[in-house]
Amino acid sequence: MNHNFTIARLGVCAIDSPLNINGFFSDDDRILFNTRLKDYDALTDSTGTPLSLEAAGPRKKIFFDPGRTKAAIVTCGGLCPGINDVIRSVTMTLFYRYGVKNILGIKYGLRGLNPLYGHQPMPLTPDFVKDITHIGGSILSSSRGPQDVKVMVDYLVQLKIDVLFCVGGDGTMRAAEKITAEIHARKKQIAVIGIPKTIDNDLNLIEKSFGFDTAIAKTVEAVGSAHVEAKGAFNGIGLVKIMGRLSGYITATTALAQGDANFVLIPEVPFDLTGEKGFLHILEKRMEASGHAVILVAEGAGQELMKQETKERKTDPSGNIRLQDIGLFLKNAIEEHFRKINLEINLKYIEPSYMIRSVPANASDSLYCSSLGQYSVHAAMAGKTGLLVALRRDEYVHLPLSAAISGRQIDPDGNLWFRVLESTGQPAQMKN
Amino acid sequence: MNHNFTIARLGVCAIDSPLNINGFFSDDDRILFNTRLKDYDALTDSTGTPLSLEAAGPRKKIFFDPGRTKAAIVTCGGLCPGINDVIRSVTMTLFYRYGVKNILGIKYGLRGLNPLYGHQPMPLTPDFVKDITHIGGSILSSSRGPQDVKVMVDYLVQLKIDVLFCVGGDGTMRAAEKITAEIHARKKQIAVIGIPKTIDNDLNLIEKSFGFDTAIAKTVEAVGSAHVEAKGAFNGIGLVKIMGRLSGYITATTALAQGDANFVLIPEVPFDLTGEKGFLHILEKRMEASGHAVILVAEGAGQELMKQETKERKTDPSGNIRLQDIGLFLKNAIEEHFRKINLEINLKYIEPSYMIRSVPANASDSLYCSSLGQYSVHAAMAGKTGLLVALRRDEYVHLPLSAAISGRQIDPDGNLWFRVLESTGQPAQMKN
Amino acid sequence: MNHNFTIARLGVCAIDSPLNINGFFSDDDRILFNTRLKDYDALTDSTGTPLSLEAAGPRKKIFFDPGRTKAAIVTCGGLCPGINDVIRSVTMTLFYRYGVKNILGIKYGLRGLNPLYGHQPMPLTPDFVKDITHIGGSILSSSRGPQDVKVMVDYLVQLKIDVLFCVGGDGTMRAAEKITAEIHARKKQIAVIGIPKTIDNDLNLIEKSFGFDTAIAKTVEAVGSAHVEAKGAFNGIGLVKIMGRLSGYITATTALAQGDANFVLIPEVPFDLTGEKGFLHILEKRMEASGHAVILVAEGAGQELMKQETKERKTDPSGNIRLQDIGLFLKNAIEEHFRKINLEINLKYIEPSYMIRSVPANASDSLYCSSLGQYSVHAAMAGKTGLLVALRRDEYVHLPLSAAISGRQIDPDGNLWFRVLESTGQPAQMKN
Amino acid sequence: MNHNFTIARLGVCAIDSPLNINGFFSDDDRILFNTRLKDYDALTDSTGTPLSLEAAGPRKKIFFDPGRTKAAIVTCGGLCPGINDVIRSVTMTLFYRYGVKNILGIKYGLRGLNPLYGHQPMPLTPDFVKDITHIGGSILSSSRGPQDVKVMVDYLVQLKIDVLFCVGGDGTMRAAEKITAEIHARKKQIAVIGIPKTIDNDLNLIEKSFGFDTAIAKTVEAVGSAHVEAKGAFNGIGLVKIMGRLSGYITATTALAQGDANFVLIPEVPFDLTGEKGFLHILEKRMEASGHAVILVAEGAGQELMKQETKERKTDPSGNIRLQDIGLFLKNAIEEHFRKINLEINLKYIEPSYMIRSVPANASDSLYCSSLGQYSVHAAMAGKTGLLVALRRDEYVHLPLSAAISGRQIDPDGNLWFRVLESTGQPAQMKN
Repeated sequence: MNHNFTIARLGVCAIDSPLNINGFFSDDDRILFNTRLKDYDALTDSTGTPLSLEAAGPRKKIFFDPGRTKAAIVTCGGLCPGINDVIRSVTMTLFYRYGVKNILGIKYGLRGLNPLYGHQPMPLTPDFVKDITHIGGSILSSSRGPQDVKVMVDYLVQLKIDVLFCVGGDGTMRAAEKITAEIHARKKQIAVIGIPKTIDNDLNLIEKSFGFDTAIAKTVEAVGSAHVEAKGAFNGIGLVKIMGRLSGYITATTALAQGDANFVLIPEVPFDLTGEKGFLHILEKRMEASGHAVILVAEGAGQELMKQETKERKTDPSGNIRLQDIGLFLKNAIEEHFRKINLEINLKYIEPSYMIRSVPANASDSLYCSSLGQYSVHAAMAGKTGLLVALRRDEYVHLPLSAAISGRQIDPDGNLWFRVLESTGQPAQMKN
Repeated sequence: MNHNFTIARLGVCAIDSPLNINGFFSDDDRILFNTRLKDYDALTDSTGTPLSLEAAGPRKKIFFDPGRTKAAIVTCGGLCPGINDVIRSVTMTLFYRYGVKNILGIKYGLRGLNPLYGHQPMPLTPDFVKDITHIGGSILSSSRGPQDVKVMVDYLVQLKIDVLFCVGGDGTMRAAEKITAEIHARKKQIAVIGIPKTIDNDLNLIEKSFGFDTAIAKTVEAVGSAHVEAKGAFNGIGLVKIMGRLSGYITATTALAQGDANFVLIPEVPFDLTGEKGFLHILEKRMEASGHAVILVAEGAGQELMKQETKERKTDPSGNIRLQDIGLFLKNAIEEHFRKINLEINLKYIEPSYMIRSVPANASDSLYCSSLGQYSVHAAMAGKTGLLVALRRDEYVHLPLSAAISGRQIDPDGNLWFRVLESTGQPAQMKN
Repeated sequence: MNHNFTIARLGVCAIDSPLNINGFFSDDDRILFNTRLKDYDALTDSTGTPLSLEAAGPRKKIFFDPGRTKAAIVTCGGLCPGINDVIRSVTMTLFYRYGVKNILGIKYGLRGLNPLYGHQPMPLTPDFVKDITHIGGSILSSSRGPQDVKVMVDYLVQLKIDVLFCVGGDGTMRAAEKITAEIHARKKQIAVIGIPKTIDNDLNLIEKSFGFDTAIAKTVEAVGSAHVEAKGAFNGIGLVKIMGRLSGYITATTALAQGDANFVLIPEVPFDLTGEKGFLHILEKRMEASGHAVILVAEGAGQELMKQETKERKTDPSGNIRLQDIGLFLKNAIEEHFRKINLEINLKYIEPSYMIRSVPANASDSLYCSSLGQYSVHAAMAGKTGLLVALRRDEYVHLPLSAAISGRQIDPDGNLWFRVLESTGQPAQMKN
Repeated sequence: MNHNFTIARLGVCAIDSPLNINGFFSDDDRILFNTRLKDYDALTDSTGTPLSLEAAGPRKKIFFDPGRTKAAIVTCGGLCPGINDVIRSVTMTLFYRYGVKNILGIKYGLRGLNPLYGHQPMPLTPDFVKDITHIGGSILSSSRGPQDVKVMVDYLVQLKIDVLFCVGGDGTMRAAEKITAEIHARKKQIAVIGIPKTIDNDLNLIEKSFGFDTAIAKTVEAVGSAHVEAKGAFNGIGLVKIMGRLSGYITATTALAQGDANFVLIPEVPFDLTGEKGFLHILEKRMEASGHAVILVAEGAGQELMKQETKERKTDPSGNIRLQDIGLFLKNAIEEHFRKINLEINLKYIEPSYMIRSVPANASDSLYCSSLGQYSVHAAMAGKTGLLVALRRDEYVHLPLSAAISGRQIDPDGNLWFRVLESTGQPAQMKN
């Protein structure tokens, strides 16, 4: 990757910020991209300066005149703890700090930007948003999948929106990028700000996606239940299927936070089912030695084991590949294995996904979401566009939308995975 | 039912209770069986006295000499919040209040009373049990299914057990009854005390089974998640499968406690799937009117709808009929229906069972379990046997084990079901 | 007490209930007042029939025409978990089940019924109340103390209120009684229904007041903290002051639910501070033996110990006697005692009151509050007045407002207190 | 500060690590001290290289022979969520990953290293520590204050300890430094590893201290209660005193996470009580405008306001200056102010400190503590000494004990404080 991480802006900032503070940020405040001594200057820009990112924060001069500014917020994709916290923070910061009183909530994700669906935008006020953080989900509702970019920009223009805040995942950031390009092509002055959301925590360059902390806390509860069930029965096995289509971040992190998992299976580390070193044999040895086992499997793990069973692999409305169900597959494979060797087991299968996505943010995520909301508004009011706000190396920064690529994975030779092995005691390799 | 509710005892109580209190109970303290003015004397005993139950509580004279008494606890069947609270309470009360120092925990349910399995009993001490209520499940582990009664009584005699506390459901109470009879036939002086456990709350004559309150609290969370998911998507449907093989108590009670359910489907109230008054049509009208729906289905509901699909109905190791999966059946039926009529829906399916059974008891159940434990010990020390301790009409009473029949169901013409209809707004009948 | 428990009604019920159910209740459905075999007929009415209470529930014929009925709700006194659940349930039942669309929320307790304060009533709709149970407190706010009865009745007449629901404690029930009498004297047809609220659970005749279960759960957390602090330091003492002005119900019940308390001090059981059998000496012996102690003290306990220190005893706006602070008094007395005998202790003092009163209801209380709301509406629509809805012996009943007398106390010779002694191991008497 | 951050080691690492992984770290893996582009090279070492810190992680060659190594853990100072997680992680990593079987828990903090007190060390095994994370506090108990360094080192030598893990705050790190120096002077080969603990999060150079996340979550609950109480009464004021002797981190962070605070008072930002711009006048204006207020005050705030009242300022056993009680001071000042101007208010005062320190770690802190434990063991086994393990800029690093200086404060001109002002809407200055 060799990226200059330049942030676009709509024009010159000529208006004094209404914020009465000392601590304004300038565009020269930048954060090093690499922080390891060995490679902080491995990537440099054209002047030989180490690669860096623009720091987020309030600017002394802003682009939009608050009294005349109209903002809109849209929330897309699957639910995730903290969406309502972001909506509240954006609304409160716009209203009270900048004096922007004209704020719309777009209903049902990008569908709400396509007037054909007839979802009317709703006005957002402090009174309306003040208590929404007690409720999970999104008060604006959501939807998956893209909409026609020209139609959406037509509608933004028609609604006289000046600033659009897009909360969503990988696909939404792609859509926001296209909307930004279309706005630019039409020479309109509409800022587009992304607030990245992925419960899988698999966005490149971003330390932690919002809702991840809450998701871990709830997944820890599910694994705790699996552990209790495993220990509560003779040769008990608790099997938990955990979110994570392409990465095992939630699964691995949960194992470290909870401490009772004996096997962690993730997409990044393929494993054999059968054979001397295969998972079933290792599990069998564990059952004989310890009499119980807790197994965490990420939904994207072991897909190759099921390949032969079916050819058709469809995609869901968001364009994601539909995964086969590794949870049920493993449940059946384990039960069959122990039936064959005539060893009684008691397997309990837990799939907590929707009980995780839908809870309100915990304090840590509320804090994070309120920060993301505040920084997003600062960026928007300064006329910056085509960016997303992110936490990186403990600093809030601006990233171009194009840099928000999902697909971050756990390095099987890296420290996180090693610590999982250390915590579970499972073999580093379950391949023959 | 015409039952005299007589409680058996092992012999004369000749030993002074070591308890230093005023408030001893006598066997003449009895609680009316019926409390409605209309029918409190509908059932009378041979003397024409209204039917009543013996009050539980400490007796002034006891049967067992604490210093020479050896007690054992066994926990059977599926996990349920509060088992460890009962174990703690029984142990603490025996140890500190009566001075019984010799207490064994039987491992893995009734299997642990069959020495062939080789599960060694473990000594229970205050130090060992003091913090176990923080953990769900049973520290003694559990198992399902019966064991040979003679073998178990042989083992009790061999271990020199004087008092056996059996925590378990319907089947366990049956087994305890048989053990009591075998002990009686052998003229042994071993007291058998049942502490009834059924998360489904379907034991006749008993106000509330322990763990039920915690189960409701956790199920409420699951339904809250379903509600958030239903409102978070266009035409969202949240479908939750809830424990309850033969009764809908958990399901109905959750609906009343949570308040967002739109449909409650229970075993006691059959429904049609199709047709003008069938569930799918009613659901369709709700989706058109409101754009979302939350559906709770007890695992035992609608079994007749699936009958034609398979003939074989097996039983599980506890002898329960294996149910077909109404949750997945409904999920498929709903999705197919809306596909047919070409109406987009977004259905999220939640099955929280094992995340409910395995949590630690909440404060209310801790309180209840500690009471049950204390009363059980009082009954045992007084040489009573073949009984279980129960809460009825807000009073703790002794019931003969034979009276503990599961199978209590919700009355479709009764007040509880009416209040569910009131809360959900669903039609009283979904039959054509 | 010799009470006929007759419930007043405004007139003949001539309107068919809009409820489409089978399970209507008649006024002849009555629940025995006493349920012990020994004394169920100790109290009889003039016909020699055992004393009984009218069962709550929907009536087939109602008094008020729903389309023309206007209802109001007022919430009074200190906060308590579940008030918003009651408001939601009353509103939902009125609106959806009876079709009463005209519902007002009175702000700031009885103050809101005095137009001089200028607090405008707010309209209550299903949309407004649907999510309020996530929030603690009362969305209508509250106030303490009485208002002029004539002024309030004038205002009810002016607002054309037909039904007034009063949520509040002892004092509020007194006020509701006076309002009922004034309405009766003016021959107005306004129903007044009380829903009793007292976090102390000290209302006579009532099994459990709403919010009590939640209060116990939160108090258990506070005591858990005290226990951790006590064990975390050398000679650690955790001292928790718990609500309970005149009764120790919360304190005693918490001790039973939590299990780690070593001393429970309540108003009903006086104790000496000094002397051989006094609390400080017993505590000293415990510290020497065990190295830590957890002490729960109800706010109304030990008032006599502090008498000499001050003469003036004021009353608060609700007319309650201002208590002296037994928590701080004990803290100082303990620290001084151990300083004197030169024994190092580490005392941590916890006063969780406002963190308990203000939380949302837990599932159990939500369930209870939704029941109370439903039954209150049924009573009101049937033109009953001057009553409160209560749970007694596991049945919902109507009680005349005059029967709602606070002041229930724990019997020092009774079973609850004995079980506390059993659980804590403290001496039955700490008096010289 | 110009520090080379060199980590001492006991000698050459000649033993192969028993860890079977690829991802070993070398001592050349270093993390930049500064990450802002402007100043990353503001500090350089003697070779002109930007200042950096040694990365934590497992080393390929280790110093101690696991089979012959004896480790000890001691926990000091006030309780904090997560101590038991650290104990569990250190024990599990030593035992299962390195094969160190000889592990002692030192009781009652540094007192336990002074044999005069007679507190016997307890053996720590996986079985003993496996479930301790469900319980708050420290299973080893703790104490405050120093002990004689020579006595402690004598005792370590006598016990044949090879590795000492010290969990504690500022003072404990000072003591650990002195112990390290004394060991060095005696030419003993005992490694001393610090795991910094400060619930106030005020350690310099460290991103986040463990337990802080849990503390915020619990404090958020307390502030939520204050908010409910403030809104539940006429002119309600919720006042919460929060931990933070010298810094307002918990208070400020809670305000950002919870979102309902109207005033945040911290040690770093002095304020006047009276006068036109003083706090009481601003509060008065808020009450008139909004009818309620939530005030958070850090325990160390406003000390200068109380100075005249007393001269004597003692120190506690840890050497900390005893603070005067700003919470009660403010409560009285507010009540007096509104009494004077004859404006009714209803103030509720909450002091949740001990209910925060004593809870078990939440998932996020469990994760963090398990990491700190793992990294500490890696450092120890590699023979490193006189260091602490810390998270900085999202990387785990080694810091010399001498670098662990508490006293980090919130910058009144910085971004965190600005975001608090943004969130509360309070004036930037409340000074005349």
